[in-house]
Amino acid sequence: MTLTRRDFSRLAGLATASAFVPSAHGQTGQHPIGWCVVGLGRISMDHFMPGVKLSQKGKIVALVSGHRDKAEKQATLYGVSQSAIYNYDNMDAIRDNKEIDAVYIALPNSMHAEYTIRSAKAGKHVLCEKPMATSVADAKAMIEASKAANRKLMIAYRCQFDPLHIKAIEMIRSGQLGQIQGIESAFGFNIQPGEWRLDRKLAGGGPLMDVGIYCLNASRYLTGEEPQEIKAYSSVIDHDGRFNTVEENVSWTMKFPSGIVAACNTTYGGNMNGYFRVHGAKGAIEMLPAFNYDGMHLAGQIGRDQKIDELSPVREPMEFTRQADHFADCVWNDRTPKTPGEEGLRDMELMSEIYQAAGLPGL
Amino acid sequence: MTLTRRDFSRLAGLATASAFVPSAHGQTGQHPIGWCVVGLGRISMDHFMPGVKLSQKGKIVALVSGHRDKAEKQATLYGVSQSAIYNYDNMDAIRDNKEIDAVYIALPNSMHAEYTIRSAKAGKHVLCEKPMATSVADAKAMIEASKAANRKLMIAYRCQFDPLHIKAIEMIRSGQLGQIQGIESAFGFNIQPGEWRLDRKLAGGGPLMDVGIYCLNASRYLTGEEPQEIKAYSSVIDHDGRFNTVEENVSWTMKFPSGIVAACNTTYGGNMNGYFRVHGAKGAIEMLPAFNYDGMHLAGQIGRDQKIDELSPVREPMEFTRQADHFADCVWNDRTPKTPGEEGLRDMELMSEIYQAAGLPGL
Repeated sequence: MTLTRRDFSRLAGLATASAFVPSAHGQTGQHPIGWCVVGLGRISMDHFMPGVKLSQKGKIVALVSGHRDKAEKQATLYGVSQSAIYNYDNMDAIRDNKEIDAVYIALPNSMHAEYTIRSAKAGKHVLCEKPMATSVADAKAMIEASKAANRKLMIAYRCQFDPLHIKAIEMIRSGQLGQIQGIESAFGFNIQPGEWRLDRKLAGGGPLMDVGIYCLNASRYLTGEEPQEIKAYSSVIDHDGRFNTVEENVSWTMKFPSGIVAACNTTYGGNMNGYFRVHGAKGAIEMLPAFNYDGMHLAGQIGRDQKIDELSPVREPMEFTRQADHFADCVWNDRTPKTPGEEGLRDMELMSEIYQAAGLPGL
Repeated sequence: MTLTRRDFSRLAGLATASAFVPSAHGQTGQHPIGWCVVGLGRISMDHFMPGVKLSQKGKIVALVSGHRDKAEKQATLYGVSQSAIYNYDNMDAIRDNKEIDAVYIALPNSMHAEYTIRSAKAGKHVLCEKPMATSVADAKAMIEASKAANRKLMIAYRCQFDPLHIKAIEMIRSGQLGQIQGIESAFGFNIQPGEWRLDRKLAGGGPLMDVGIYCLNASRYLTGEEPQEIKAYSSVIDHDGRFNTVEENVSWTMKFPSGIVAACNTTYGGNMNGYFRVHGAKGAIEMLPAFNYDGMHLAGQIGRDQKIDELSPVREPMEFTRQADHFADCVWNDRTPKTPGEEGLRDMELMSEIYQAAGLPGL
């Protein structure tokens, strides 16, 4: 038998591929993580659950919702048994459901702490949406509860699992852009009245908690540093009833230990397509949009000749699948998640500082 | 005679055009402004003088330079007589040159005040490059000197004469973007060692004075408001000898009376293609690049359907021609320039506040 170069490449490719094809029970032969989804809003139904469905490492096995009808429809879609549909009163019974390994919490922010702690006490690992909580104290209690139960706690910073964000970080760390000097980032939208996000009791704060957190978190993972000082402004321009309990705008600047400065904006009053821009001695990159669920675009220039122009691969729900896969790997191998409770706590503390720098109460 | 629709349009067009074709002596029959150019750097030779050459309202009639050879070459190019070449010692003699109506000052920042005041005392109108001066006191003295001599003083904020910048302002003022909430703007570059811009005695400050001023000025003309409060950081990251007397980075945020917040960055340590981004309730626009001499690009979206995507018309040196034409109109018709000394003073005061907010000495 003679092999052409092409034959050899194909065979080598097949061999490599087969090594990575997960078995029915996942890569390591362990059983897929059984997920209980708490809260059936858009992010659960449109992103997380489809993301898990594409994962070889997890499956949806239980639901918690205040709307039985909605839950039953989703249960049918994902093959969840009727007996694994819980409501907020009886959800502590998940303790007795051995199919459930982990709980995904996608509730209004103020409920994150209670349901994370209840889930940990029920012996379950937790993946909680961001912002982690509505107070620093709650965030700490969540970490404590997970530690006490010896369960994992991860905060759903999906962008940190996104290939283009990872590429941007790698370009910076490898020195391709030279010494970084400044960063700008903004994210916001014109909110509709009546959303729970406008109720401080449920949301804990305004756009900073909801979308500004992306700019804050990106500034941290792009620089690889923690802000040393923060200055900020907040304002309400539209006195139309939407901003009676939360702010409309926050603008803040941060100084990092190396001297890098970052200038950020967030709003609930206008269209602010999320982006970041990083300026280095040798080049600059921009991702716009940066924080959407799909269609991210990384562009930039290094020196005179090297252009960067990359679109996200077909991705939805890749980001959520990657996030769920990472969580499964952490559970299987007893590793600390890339974005643990402590990562969420750091943002909580920094958002508290931003609010205080803007003359508002801290968190 | 029968006229087709096309014939009629052409005739109408010709009639309109002829009404605006300036006579040899300018639109109003007055003689073209005679310009004396002080300082033969890139901005004079590559931008201002070619800009005036394209103007029907002005001509280059005199030069002031420390380099006689360079001045003679430029004199030949622009038909300036050898007797109208001055140096910094004898330039007060421009008083006796009746051909000179106005002086264009493009010197290192710290020399703006002295040469503006000398020009005013010589009975000449002045167009001075930005930043207007290196101290608030000098800026005030320049305004006083021009008033005492009953001469015009204009600061060369060329972007305020740029069609795309004017279009952005009109979109905002007309309410097309809805209530503006936030602005981001940045401008900077990686400076070469040895430039006069790195010497505080000549420059007065670092990138804030040189390029950050574009972001500051744009935030003011885009909002149509004056910043009420300012918070800032400054840093030096590269201890390579360039930043011994001026800062490397400034990051600042401003709050305007309406509640609009602006976040700005400037650097001498990295590539920061100048831009601004304006976020309103109904839409958002971005100009990138915004502060170059050509190739500006205004993009944005209003609501779901209205896309904005406009490139600058063939422009070089249109911006400088428009600026020089405006100045001629002001001299001819005894009008206050759109960007008078007071506009420059306002930026000086605000840059002084920015420096102080960053813990540096004011101006």
